[in-house]
Amino acid sequence: MQKKEKPWGGRFGKQTDKQVETFTASIQFDKRLYRYDIEGSIAHATMLARQGIISQVEGKSIIKALGNIRQDLEKGRFTFSDGDEDIHMAIEKALIDKIGESGGKLHTGRSRNDQIALDMRLYLRDQNAQILVMLGQLKNTFLNLATQEIQTIMPGYTHMQKAQPVLLSHYLLAYWEMLNRDEERLTDSQKRFNVMPLGSAALAGTGLPIDREYTANLLNFPALSQNSMDAVSDRDFIIEFISAAAMIMMHLSRFAEDMILWSTDEFSFVQIDDAFTTGSSIMPQKKNPDVAELLRGKTARVYGHLVTLLTLMKGLPMTYNRDLQEDKEPFFDTVDTVKACLQILNAMVQRLTFNREKMHSDAAGGFSTATDVAEYLVKKGVPFRSAHSAVGRMVAYCLKKNKVLESLTMDEFHGFRSEFQEDIYSYLTVESAINVRNITGGTSLQAVRKRIKSLEKNGRVKVDASQR
Amino acid sequence: MQKKEKPWGGRFGKQTDKQVETFTASIQFDKRLYRYDIEGSIAHATMLARQGIISQVEGKSIIKALGNIRQDLEKGRFTFSDGDEDIHMAIEKALIDKIGESGGKLHTGRSRNDQIALDMRLYLRDQNAQILVMLGQLKNTFLNLATQEIQTIMPGYTHMQKAQPVLLSHYLLAYWEMLNRDEERLTDSQKRFNVMPLGSAALAGTGLPIDREYTANLLNFPALSQNSMDAVSDRDFIIEFISAAAMIMMHLSRFAEDMILWSTDEFSFVQIDDAFTTGSSIMPQKKNPDVAELLRGKTARVYGHLVTLLTLMKGLPMTYNRDLQEDKEPFFDTVDTVKACLQILNAMVQRLTFNREKMHSDAAGGFSTATDVAEYLVKKGVPFRSAHSAVGRMVAYCLKKNKVLESLTMDEFHGFRSEFQEDIYSYLTVESAINVRNITGGTSLQAVRKRIKSLEKNGRVKVDASQR
Amino acid sequence: MQKKEKPWGGRFGKQTDKQVETFTASIQFDKRLYRYDIEGSIAHATMLARQGIISQVEGKSIIKALGNIRQDLEKGRFTFSDGDEDIHMAIEKALIDKIGESGGKLHTGRSRNDQIALDMRLYLRDQNAQILVMLGQLKNTFLNLATQEIQTIMPGYTHMQKAQPVLLSHYLLAYWEMLNRDEERLTDSQKRFNVMPLGSAALAGTGLPIDREYTANLLNFPALSQNSMDAVSDRDFIIEFISAAAMIMMHLSRFAEDMILWSTDEFSFVQIDDAFTTGSSIMPQKKNPDVAELLRGKTARVYGHLVTLLTLMKGLPMTYNRDLQEDKEPFFDTVDTVKACLQILNAMVQRLTFNREKMHSDAAGGFSTATDVAEYLVKKGVPFRSAHSAVGRMVAYCLKKNKVLESLTMDEFHGFRSEFQEDIYSYLTVESAINVRNITGGTSLQAVRKRIKSLEKNGRVKVDASQR
Amino acid sequence: MQKKEKPWGGRFGKQTDKQVETFTASIQFDKRLYRYDIEGSIAHATMLARQGIISQVEGKSIIKALGNIRQDLEKGRFTFSDGDEDIHMAIEKALIDKIGESGGKLHTGRSRNDQIALDMRLYLRDQNAQILVMLGQLKNTFLNLATQEIQTIMPGYTHMQKAQPVLLSHYLLAYWEMLNRDEERLTDSQKRFNVMPLGSAALAGTGLPIDREYTANLLNFPALSQNSMDAVSDRDFIIEFISAAAMIMMHLSRFAEDMILWSTDEFSFVQIDDAFTTGSSIMPQKKNPDVAELLRGKTARVYGHLVTLLTLMKGLPMTYNRDLQEDKEPFFDTVDTVKACLQILNAMVQRLTFNREKMHSDAAGGFSTATDVAEYLVKKGVPFRSAHSAVGRMVAYCLKKNKVLESLTMDEFHGFRSEFQEDIYSYLTVESAINVRNITGGTSLQAVRKRIKSLEKNGRVKVDASQR
Repeated sequence: MQKKEKPWGGRFGKQTDKQVETFTASIQFDKRLYRYDIEGSIAHATMLARQGIISQVEGKSIIKALGNIRQDLEKGRFTFSDGDEDIHMAIEKALIDKIGESGGKLHTGRSRNDQIALDMRLYLRDQNAQILVMLGQLKNTFLNLATQEIQTIMPGYTHMQKAQPVLLSHYLLAYWEMLNRDEERLTDSQKRFNVMPLGSAALAGTGLPIDREYTANLLNFPALSQNSMDAVSDRDFIIEFISAAAMIMMHLSRFAEDMILWSTDEFSFVQIDDAFTTGSSIMPQKKNPDVAELLRGKTARVYGHLVTLLTLMKGLPMTYNRDLQEDKEPFFDTVDTVKACLQILNAMVQRLTFNREKMHSDAAGGFSTATDVAEYLVKKGVPFRSAHSAVGRMVAYCLKKNKVLESLTMDEFHGFRSEFQEDIYSYLTVESAINVRNITGGTSLQAVRKRIKSLEKNGRVKVDASQR
Repeated sequence: MQKKEKPWGGRFGKQTDKQVETFTASIQFDKRLYRYDIEGSIAHATMLARQGIISQVEGKSIIKALGNIRQDLEKGRFTFSDGDEDIHMAIEKALIDKIGESGGKLHTGRSRNDQIALDMRLYLRDQNAQILVMLGQLKNTFLNLATQEIQTIMPGYTHMQKAQPVLLSHYLLAYWEMLNRDEERLTDSQKRFNVMPLGSAALAGTGLPIDREYTANLLNFPALSQNSMDAVSDRDFIIEFISAAAMIMMHLSRFAEDMILWSTDEFSFVQIDDAFTTGSSIMPQKKNPDVAELLRGKTARVYGHLVTLLTLMKGLPMTYNRDLQEDKEPFFDTVDTVKACLQILNAMVQRLTFNREKMHSDAAGGFSTATDVAEYLVKKGVPFRSAHSAVGRMVAYCLKKNKVLESLTMDEFHGFRSEFQEDIYSYLTVESAINVRNITGGTSLQAVRKRIKSLEKNGRVKVDASQR
Repeated sequence: MQKKEKPWGGRFGKQTDKQVETFTASIQFDKRLYRYDIEGSIAHATMLARQGIISQVEGKSIIKALGNIRQDLEKGRFTFSDGDEDIHMAIEKALIDKIGESGGKLHTGRSRNDQIALDMRLYLRDQNAQILVMLGQLKNTFLNLATQEIQTIMPGYTHMQKAQPVLLSHYLLAYWEMLNRDEERLTDSQKRFNVMPLGSAALAGTGLPIDREYTANLLNFPALSQNSMDAVSDRDFIIEFISAAAMIMMHLSRFAEDMILWSTDEFSFVQIDDAFTTGSSIMPQKKNPDVAELLRGKTARVYGHLVTLLTLMKGLPMTYNRDLQEDKEPFFDTVDTVKACLQILNAMVQRLTFNREKMHSDAAGGFSTATDVAEYLVKKGVPFRSAHSAVGRMVAYCLKKNKVLESLTMDEFHGFRSEFQEDIYSYLTVESAINVRNITGGTSLQAVRKRIKSLEKNGRVKVDASQR
Repeated sequence: MQKKEKPWGGRFGKQTDKQVETFTASIQFDKRLYRYDIEGSIAHATMLARQGIISQVEGKSIIKALGNIRQDLEKGRFTFSDGDEDIHMAIEKALIDKIGESGGKLHTGRSRNDQIALDMRLYLRDQNAQILVMLGQLKNTFLNLATQEIQTIMPGYTHMQKAQPVLLSHYLLAYWEMLNRDEERLTDSQKRFNVMPLGSAALAGTGLPIDREYTANLLNFPALSQNSMDAVSDRDFIIEFISAAAMIMMHLSRFAEDMILWSTDEFSFVQIDDAFTTGSSIMPQKKNPDVAELLRGKTARVYGHLVTLLTLMKGLPMTYNRDLQEDKEPFFDTVDTVKACLQILNAMVQRLTFNREKMHSDAAGGFSTATDVAEYLVKKGVPFRSAHSAVGRMVAYCLKKNKVLESLTMDEFHGFRSEFQEDIYSYLTVESAINVRNITGGTSLQAVRKRIKSLEKNGRVKVDASQR
């Protein structure tokens, strides 16, 4: 009797419409969860047998068959059939095909509501660990590059206007800071997703004498969910992850933007390796920073996914609602996007070539040591506001006379403030402008060296996934 | 020499990194454009030959080969190879494989920048027409259902609290109005996407003597793009489409919400056909309105896609930037989602069964004719605010005495206002409350009948895709 | 009896909590609607009197008092009191204060639900017309600037890499196109917001014999809403407006981005007038393009408002729900933002100074005529792909030899393809590269001149607000 | 000379345009930071004097004057003047007005870039602590209500369909869990925002010998920012806060949705106190759950603000760009919204009245114990899938015969499975269905009691703001 094929079909007078089957199915995208689903099912079956809810023989038979199904899936030998709603049902059907009616006992004391909550948490735990490794690698890459470019001088910008000379290493370490916060956020989130929901059943908890602590131990969860109604409808962990991912992408987009700018003819600060650029189908001379552009563009898709998840959850009544199925595609795509972007950026950064001469000579332009002149005056006792104003007038004077600050005579200096002395000229070099900023977090060579040393000692992340 | 395999590789010293190839490829998702890409290429080749830019023989050979490639693609015989960047390159490669070096002439006077702009516009034109048909069908379905439920009385709600009785047909026609605006928006957008960009080349226009008007005629475009720099970087038409789609989904989500509410035990206003519901893996009695829930949930993904597109385009410098490649997946998924949702809702609505008795009896509750009592007093000359206040006190009195308005005695009525007369009782029925609202756009049977008749005459959309 | 002060308080046993009053009040932001609220009320009162629902005397008294209240509001003499919930109630209270209990008759046949729908539509109609004028002005400004810079040559970019030389006028007219689409969208939306909702009452239509057509005529509305339930819960017109506004802002952000880039030291293509820049509190030399940066940044707030409105409406049950009150602040802020941005950009663009020499000399760099060499070969019969490849190798050769294409000898040319002849040198100038692209929408001087002429004749918008 | 009035005006030839001044000013919204700005300035001045960068006399005079300015601001005696750009400049001007040119020394070693970063962090630290207190209070309110309703039985829903009976206390504690995660997130974020940025100056660090550690100690910051370029452009802490806020609002919206549903006539599970509802201007009988609706609606605005911030930061080049000014309004409005919502919900929840009888009797309907029948069969050895199927058929049978499970005879039971015995009837009560789910996180009275006890001991948050 075909109409009984749905595992939940007992009560229904009609079969599901074919179009409805397609519309409601999640198998196309949730099949990527198979490994976690089977891992969870094996733990569940182990516990059921230990509790005597199913027999030891049944337990062993289920576990063995699940192992075989996993192998089939991994080797691409598993055939999904047309009416499979989701990965849970597909696996359960395969199980029953393999070992008969006793396969139907696996779902004892469990609902798809807590099962999917478990699968998603196992999946996130795995992916989060992988992303943490990648963040660590990228941090190291920035640190290595900073070490390599320790003395390279570049113009620092605010409002995209030259502001003050800085070290390229200082610039690069700014990204270390951003990525480090990203890492912290993902690490902090662990305590919230690393919670075992099984036993919550559909919404009220199971009525069978299962042992949640045991299952949690088998699956290496340090905590149990404490409220079954919350556990089956909570998607905070996904939103928190996508929020953190959105910030990661935002950071990458900022670096990408700078690399795109810096590889323009006009800036010519950096050469992106040919391998990370592409050409034009019409303009033979073009070398386009496509990878950086796509990094910037892909930020948009993660933002969109965050909006999707938040919108999805707003005003959703307790407890599980089918809307929740829509959590998966944006979540999975966020994982894929972040991983691909971190990896490719890591490779791209390692092969950047900086045009040190152009950077240095540009750093000297645009009156970039004007602040140092103001600070010189302050040190001579001039109130900051008055010093700032005097130097402002000096810049206007230079622009008019087509001069630079270094070329002003002592007389000209005195025309603005009498406090100037011969030593002013030593303040007008970019090297001086950099090294005077010798403060924690400042751009002086000494400060940057100290920071690198400290990061190398404590901060350089051991990139060993197994430790997470 | 393998390194030359990229059609743009002439200038490059290194091959693209494998990882980069995967990261930048769009072939997995843009292959759905093949039909439009070939349609555009055939028109382009026809024009090139007519202009003598390529020979007649070359033109014919290209066109014939493109036809064959289309067949291969349609029949699943086309093999994509690993390094295919995008659908344009895949097809061009196949063309050169088939007819030799002269296949390389197809790209004369064209860039991938204007080519993809063309493909996307052809695709949107096609999909927009299909969605217009589906909107028309759904409008008709609501209109038919309104005709069928013309006299069914239901409680009207504001703030989810019973407000006044209305006709179910009136309620259903509210959705007709929303869908009609959706249709208008998509129709209005046509003049903006139905514009032919070919000839814009990479950004500056082609330098070859092509005939843009001729190509436009072949492809049935009423207008040419007027600025090549705009034409290759304009994605307004995608954003405008997704905005309209977001509003469609929002309308569907509102109906879905009501159907979910109405099919609760507590409301019991509607029965969703078994074919559009599913059961529970654990609770045998459940019949869940999954389709309606997914309609509501899928709204979130279209919202996310809109955010993605807007984010993508913000602050993008002129003209084409590779970020634009990220326009496709959200766009395609929006098209797929809206079509699937319109179709399934159309089917679901046709099979709704309303519980007319429950609706009617509920309509009478909650003092739903209180406004009519106030309006009664107004007609007797009482200022509206005083009338409103008197009836407010009557309701409070009834709540306290556990009475309904209909059960008040004439003496009780007079305790509140002396203007009440015996005829007040005839104002307290739901039928009276409905029929008194006999105004254009009101809920009286006469007004709704008139509206249906007018829609049947003028408004019922001929759902013939070929007319669009 | 203070507890009766709420116009809807009759039924309530307790007063509203003070905190709740603050939480639910909209008066702080909806008071900006006063002019529209009074305009609508005067029309409503005129109609009520004409229909005999209120007496002529009452009608006149109400209308006169409303006029006085409007004057009080305009002159800042109106005192809002603490418990005013919203602008409707504040005005009604003032009315009753002025003319006594008969002021309470104004609300006859009307609810706040249709009243606010009317106010918002009147407000949007007014603002939309103002924004259309501003768009027209900005289009004209771009057109004028294009006329002024008709011959200025600049590098055209794709992927931020130099691609081909273009005319600055061509670049500027690309923005004309974008703004023109924006204008079209706002114009198209008129037919949807220009619809009169009064008579819909709370949700079901009024039961009193009002004349909707008459009110619509008084208020200059060409159409009536056709379904009362839709009319009181429809906020499509706000979403459609904010969507269009988001696209306007996106366009402005793109221009802002380019101006920020172009005013860097490195590009030095444009000088933004001092009046549109600001300085630094610490760096005396800085001149920052703050206005352009804020234009770019303010795009983000309009995107956010669009998300707010869409989120708000998703899954909202029929009909009016209090959530709808949250439509106002994002809507109003969008109006304010778009108007301020259009105005300031219009002023800023008028005072841009382009560095024509730098633009021209940069246009010649970066092998920007390479495409022309390829097209030269095509004209000599070389298939495009082969031509493209040859030129690619020429560029690689030049990079290695530190040459430019113009400096290659005839022998060197022949080393790549035998088809080259002496005339190749005339194709290597930027002027040639521009003028060869003489196609509708292309960048040749002739094509751009033609476009300007056509826009001046037909396209230059009469910026007369009264015509809208 | 008026043109010098801008503190950064020295270099400028023209005055800022009036319109530009308005467009770029932030004083209208950043003045709310005055307390933090002054607190930071006092610490900065204290440090400057200690370091001898300014004299002790100057330091004391500045600090005293700043104290006076704070008092003026608190008492509303401070007059902002027209050209004030921002709160920093307004206060500095007042300082110079009070103590003359030496007031200009306050800005020594500081830029507005690090100053605003400091102000925002001080502000967030304060607001975050307040919100943590409110979250703690709301958690307690839910806990108290759960204690009070410990035995109240209600229907548990999935897909809005009755699923299984649960305890109302269990339902309420689900919100405790959500709020607890919110609290954790805000607590975790502290280590990222509680970082002292002063000394970063414009972007490169100050060149003056300031003591950052000392300033940090004065301001009670446990850490210093480690990279000046990052420190002036980092807005992660705002995004992280708004992300957490969006999740708080999402949780509130879910509760609001349920309260709106539950206070419909149809559900009648809860009575919201009159003080938290409002009436209708037209329908005298209405009592609308406005507060709950606005809570739901206000979620949308926080979502919008999150989108604004993320959009703002995407692709922003290093370091400070004026776009960043747009971070404030959405941030401030998020703070205000979350605080207002938490407070009002806390008050509303305390005065909810549940209709225990209606909840209980509804819990028995809808075959809500069907799962228990299936679990009964499982305990008798029937595989879960077979048990589920049998009960599904029983429900279909009951629906057809218009029966409930409790009314089936033993014979009827046996018609479905022979394993049924007389004890089945004891499984069909809602009390049994609840108490059998006696598992950690389950809904049994014992499990919920245990949870409450544990929360009362460890979890009940001390709501003492000073501890944060």
